[in-house]
Amino acid sequence: MSWSERLAELGITLPEVVPPLAAYVPATRHGDLIYTAGQLPIVDGELRVHGKVSETAEGVVHVDTAVELARLCALNGLAAIDSLVGIDHVERVVKVTGFVASAPGFSAQAAVLNGASLLLGEIFGDAGRHVRSAVGVAELPLGAPVEVELVVAVH
Amino acid sequence: MSWSERLAELGITLPEVVPPLAAYVPATRHGDLIYTAGQLPIVDGELRVHGKVSETAEGVVHVDTAVELARLCALNGLAAIDSLVGIDHVERVVKVTGFVASAPGFSAQAAVLNGASLLLGEIFGDAGRHVRSAVGVAELPLGAPVEVELVVAVH
Amino acid sequence: MSWSERLAELGITLPEVVPPLAAYVPATRHGDLIYTAGQLPIVDGELRVHGKVSETAEGVVHVDTAVELARLCALNGLAAIDSLVGIDHVERVVKVTGFVASAPGFSAQAAVLNGASLLLGEIFGDAGRHVRSAVGVAELPLGAPVEVELVVAVH
Repeated sequence: MSWSERLAELGITLPEVVPPLAAYVPATRHGDLIYTAGQLPIVDGELRVHGKVSETAEGVVHVDTAVELARLCALNGLAAIDSLVGIDHVERVVKVTGFVASAPGFSAQAAVLNGASLLLGEIFGDAGRHVRSAVGVAELPLGAPVEVELVVAVH
Repeated sequence: MSWSERLAELGITLPEVVPPLAAYVPATRHGDLIYTAGQLPIVDGELRVHGKVSETAEGVVHVDTAVELARLCALNGLAAIDSLVGIDHVERVVKVTGFVASAPGFSAQAAVLNGASLLLGEIFGDAGRHVRSAVGVAELPLGAPVEVELVVAVH
Repeated sequence: MSWSERLAELGITLPEVVPPLAAYVPATRHGDLIYTAGQLPIVDGELRVHGKVSETAEGVVHVDTAVELARLCALNGLAAIDSLVGIDHVERVVKVTGFVASAPGFSAQAAVLNGASLLLGEIFGDAGRHVRSAVGVAELPLGAPVEVELVVAVH
């Protein structure tokens, strides 16, 4: 089964590529690696949610919401890859780097990034197994709660 | 036109390589990729400006200054690449990662990093098109407002 | 002398691989590069120290402790590499990225990361020379003070 067929089976439609915020491109290829730009949880041209992630405090982004946002970031990354080489050319996911805009004391960055990692596992199975760094940062572009970049191998 | 000639045409002189702050090197080559260390806006051995970046508050680094600092970081990255392999061997820029020490609420990291991205476009044209992640962080080494690392392909 | 022999000579035993916190793997190989996941200073399944790093304030992690923690992170990274391909297949260290959970005003991230860089130099000598980015971040997973990821070339 191709990855396109797998996406259809899962009922997942890749979104439109999010235009870069600035003077860069959504994805580059070097040899058989594709690098994506850092992806924000932008849907239909709008950042879905603003703010910092926390498990408890009010007035911030709840961790459960942030998990969903990390999934959206990963989908945007796959859209960038698809537009450059076609999703069916993905051989495997190599690396995920995730940044979580974190309210003071929030340390469940790993749980947030699972929104991205589990999506990749769901789609690609063993070929979706990747290394990952999850980091809690002060601020992200546009006030986004999560940013995710992908490195995948293609053939 | 070689990149050296292009730099001359633009009136850009690559600076001296900034010595690493610690136990690492300015650039490494693996295959046909060059990775630079994270570059700070150091000129003639001194960090040009200290502090966190903001659009509004006083007593901090204004975003317009930070854009210039990101450009200096990129120049330092190119100097590191030049010293390792010679700038004329650059085939293309693959990836830029930028960290902006951000005052609370500052979310224009993309604008800051354009200082680096636009310089790369100015010099390398289409070969300067790269993916980029821009992140707002709590603190950078020496109190620097910006840190930029580059990955370029060479031939 | 093989790297195993060198480790024995230095009296260093690589630890057990730290199981990933979530849906990812400790190390991936693509071509002749190994990427590790972001490594925390976990020893025998427990995070050694929690908190943010500072040079002065009390109630936080002192920079000298953080240097040791960065060394532990690097050891965990080497354990991940060893388990995937065997440490003796390391050709050289290419890149180190280090994140330091930083108390306000702490800017000695470079000193902290030397805990990792000096260990790599001690073991691998010239083959341990790497580029490095050191960044001070708001929060790290589990409340860790330091996180380090490695990229190494193997043969």
